[in-house]
Amino acid sequence: MSSNKLKMVKNVAGRLVPTKVNGREVIPFKGVHQYRPTGRRAAPPISTFIDYPDGNKLVPDLRTALERCGLADGMTISTHHHFRDGDVLANQLFDLIAEMGVKNLRWFPSATFPCHAPMIKHLDSGVIHHIEGSLNGPLGLYCSQGKMKGMGVLRSHGGRYRAIRDGDVHIDITVIAAPTADPFGNCNGMHGASACGPLGFSEADSMYADKVIVVTDNLVPMPCYPPWQIEGNYVDCVVEMDKVGTPEKILSGTTEITRSPNQLLIAETASQFVREAGILHDGLNFQAGAGGISLAFVDFLHKIMAEEGLRARCIIGGITRLAVDMLEGNATDYLIDGQAFDQAAIENMRENSRHICISPFHSYDYHSKGNQISFMDVIVLGATEVDVNFNANVVTHSDGLMLHGIGGWQNCMFAQCTMLAIPSFRNRMPVIRDEVTTICAPGEVVDVVVTERGLAINPRREDLIEATKGSKLPIRKIEEIKQEVEELCGGPPERPELGDKVVAVIEWVDGTVLDSVYQVKKS
Amino acid sequence: MSSNKLKMVKNVAGRLVPTKVNGREVIPFKGVHQYRPTGRRAAPPISTFIDYPDGNKLVPDLRTALERCGLADGMTISTHHHFRDGDVLANQLFDLIAEMGVKNLRWFPSATFPCHAPMIKHLDSGVIHHIEGSLNGPLGLYCSQGKMKGMGVLRSHGGRYRAIRDGDVHIDITVIAAPTADPFGNCNGMHGASACGPLGFSEADSMYADKVIVVTDNLVPMPCYPPWQIEGNYVDCVVEMDKVGTPEKILSGTTEITRSPNQLLIAETASQFVREAGILHDGLNFQAGAGGISLAFVDFLHKIMAEEGLRARCIIGGITRLAVDMLEGNATDYLIDGQAFDQAAIENMRENSRHICISPFHSYDYHSKGNQISFMDVIVLGATEVDVNFNANVVTHSDGLMLHGIGGWQNCMFAQCTMLAIPSFRNRMPVIRDEVTTICAPGEVVDVVVTERGLAINPRREDLIEATKGSKLPIRKIEEIKQEVEELCGGPPERPELGDKVVAVIEWVDGTVLDSVYQVKKS
Repeated sequence: MSSNKLKMVKNVAGRLVPTKVNGREVIPFKGVHQYRPTGRRAAPPISTFIDYPDGNKLVPDLRTALERCGLADGMTISTHHHFRDGDVLANQLFDLIAEMGVKNLRWFPSATFPCHAPMIKHLDSGVIHHIEGSLNGPLGLYCSQGKMKGMGVLRSHGGRYRAIRDGDVHIDITVIAAPTADPFGNCNGMHGASACGPLGFSEADSMYADKVIVVTDNLVPMPCYPPWQIEGNYVDCVVEMDKVGTPEKILSGTTEITRSPNQLLIAETASQFVREAGILHDGLNFQAGAGGISLAFVDFLHKIMAEEGLRARCIIGGITRLAVDMLEGNATDYLIDGQAFDQAAIENMRENSRHICISPFHSYDYHSKGNQISFMDVIVLGATEVDVNFNANVVTHSDGLMLHGIGGWQNCMFAQCTMLAIPSFRNRMPVIRDEVTTICAPGEVVDVVVTERGLAINPRREDLIEATKGSKLPIRKIEEIKQEVEELCGGPPERPELGDKVVAVIEWVDGTVLDSVYQVKKS
Repeated sequence: MSSNKLKMVKNVAGRLVPTKVNGREVIPFKGVHQYRPTGRRAAPPISTFIDYPDGNKLVPDLRTALERCGLADGMTISTHHHFRDGDVLANQLFDLIAEMGVKNLRWFPSATFPCHAPMIKHLDSGVIHHIEGSLNGPLGLYCSQGKMKGMGVLRSHGGRYRAIRDGDVHIDITVIAAPTADPFGNCNGMHGASACGPLGFSEADSMYADKVIVVTDNLVPMPCYPPWQIEGNYVDCVVEMDKVGTPEKILSGTTEITRSPNQLLIAETASQFVREAGILHDGLNFQAGAGGISLAFVDFLHKIMAEEGLRARCIIGGITRLAVDMLEGNATDYLIDGQAFDQAAIENMRENSRHICISPFHSYDYHSKGNQISFMDVIVLGATEVDVNFNANVVTHSDGLMLHGIGGWQNCMFAQCTMLAIPSFRNRMPVIRDEVTTICAPGEVVDVVVTERGLAINPRREDLIEATKGSKLPIRKIEEIKQEVEELCGGPPERPELGDKVVAVIEWVDGTVLDSVYQVKKS
């Protein structure tokens, strides 16, 4: 469908969004905590023991599994991204599907990475009609250039889980890369040569897809334990493969502490804010993303807590060696881990029972009966842009190109205090703007913006403003920081040359449509 | 509804069963593996974070929780039976509900025990309209006497889980007694003064009930871990109480090894059968119920395996000290535990990560994609009666009184070899009959009947007959054993004097109706 035929409406964030996305009616964003869902959850077909009489679901190869699962044109096929840039399954899967002559699929990964660039040929040829999921790198560029047949739909981790449970996305077949599995289909990511940690990104897929295929390079006798992160009772077929992923490639540049003096200053300022604003206390719960600044924040916070003799209760998130060191050093009671970002995290999850494996359901699903993010006292995140109304962007750059996914970023906005720790400019492009290119989080959920030129508190957070009055923190108005940076960079970034074709939409955590992403004419 | 108005049909087991049970259309039993379900699973209403903004679900007391959950006349209220005869919650709950003036409820426990005799007043007064669930002891007697307003529905553990998932039973409010919980509602049965082991009997209730109340006597800060057996994301309210159960009363006479020479002979014969029939091998998977004979069987089997230098892979079931000793003595790789039958099991589950906590979903749900029972090489169970066609009864006695629940008994019939290990008579009443009073398992799923007068192999199991040819096992025809016992006891049991009122039905694992239980005129 060309966007010329799309009906567009203005949502309460002031953004034009389509009323239909890939043929499905959608609801425009109505404001934070304003959209109340009605109706009932997705209801998978009732299965029967008759079809799985001996519990042994091994089939000779992936092709056989796909055939048994009734692979057909137009289906939705899902995969997980726990291997991040080390995923080897998805490319093989779609190469095989192409060989089988099947077309017009919706690929529904939890995220894509540069390693998935070979998918472009399947998008070009029509094997994949479109992708709904985070598009990091080349596939994001492809989509931004207007080349994808359908529309990209970017959802947060919690939003993806919600979309499956609410029935917004019906998965026909999910294929789960499992570092260890048994013939019944119980599987986990903790053991085996390809261990990747949690498998939570596949949890909803396993529970709600019509058909579930587990592929593994470490088949063990029943029961695959501990633990079964994916329950065999949901699984149709199990396939052995040589290798299901390259865990060494999970780690990337963004999962190491920054060495940039500016970025270290930002991280230190953020940690000082936590102390000065009275957020710090014994039993603190916090999350920090995987970016270099966020990791440096964890390091600074750790030191402050040690100085003051305080321990954390939980660190939630994508987990790295830094958080593991805190657990092992008795600086926190628990790690709550939805995604292992390095080998240290994977190993520690195996060894320490206080390193808890979770899925996005527990941490992030907005349509469950609350979630664990509301227990977080403070969360530090990155952003590509933020504007003077504290609206924030995490998927497009100021040139309009959509090169990043949302991850857990939107979901984290419901912590007690959410801080964006960002440099005030990148490549001489100001990061604080009058209006963000794409709204991924409405300003009312962003509490503090920390830059190397000072920090700005959202005027809505009078409590934080009051708490930090008289502190030595470099508190400034966000407009002031913006102006200073524009003077330094020679003005605001040029407006990108965008077409009128909507190439993707940004869903809010509740499934409403928050913003549209447009084709970039020149890139 | 009086059974006079019921339309009765004959099912393929030759039994007359009603076409409607408590107002719901039901399907008569169609044969083992013959009923193929259509349609989709139950779909709970979509909830939203808006109603649980800070994740803290603590309310002052149970009355407040029930009010918030909208308790009203005619609702279905469920509870679990992990405390068995040590349950203290259900009586308090219904006393409170009676005080609140609410009537006409369906109580949907996973099982009831003698401790629930006080519920009779609530059945008499109309607070509880009827109970669907296993009725062990006084409530079974009450039902058998035709005093319950609605019909009893007896389901296996797996059948109950299935009924919830398939939407046969819609739970309005479930109240979960939790030995440890956090304010978000994550809870487990493994820790705290009232630790009872698994909480799996509440798992489906938590996932599918409209409203979920957790009561605990051990409130801990988020996160209640390890593990969260019930996920807080499903929970509406958390209530603190002084005591949620008396774990010392979990243990009962039926969870100790028999000392009766006859019963020991039965158990030894069963264990010899496992060896002689070629079932025994390294990596054996088996289950044994909690009765004295079954436990003695475990003990004999353990010795045989030790003699032959064999180890088990898994022991599944209700777990006792005997199984724990095998795990700790390295005689099995894993225990798969759905229900702790003594303190040793509870303690070991906390301490040994190879002692796996499961729900009836994993082990028993017939409408999932297979279940773990099909991996069991052999299972030994009890029965109240068995007939010459190998049909078996576990709920009524030969006097017609329904005094027992089904438990996992029906579900276990899908093991590779199912043995009933039973005395040939009890109180001078023959246990082997021409026709059982109530069919709880059709003859084709019962493989071997072992008595102190020899064992009978189901003629359908030609493989087992062949395998044991020439062995020293006391193999006989079932009719022969029956005749010998009748001669000894002075003839078959008298037919009980039954009314024509159907007081309860027996569901098969797939939800079809296998048999009717009739009012007993004299008892």
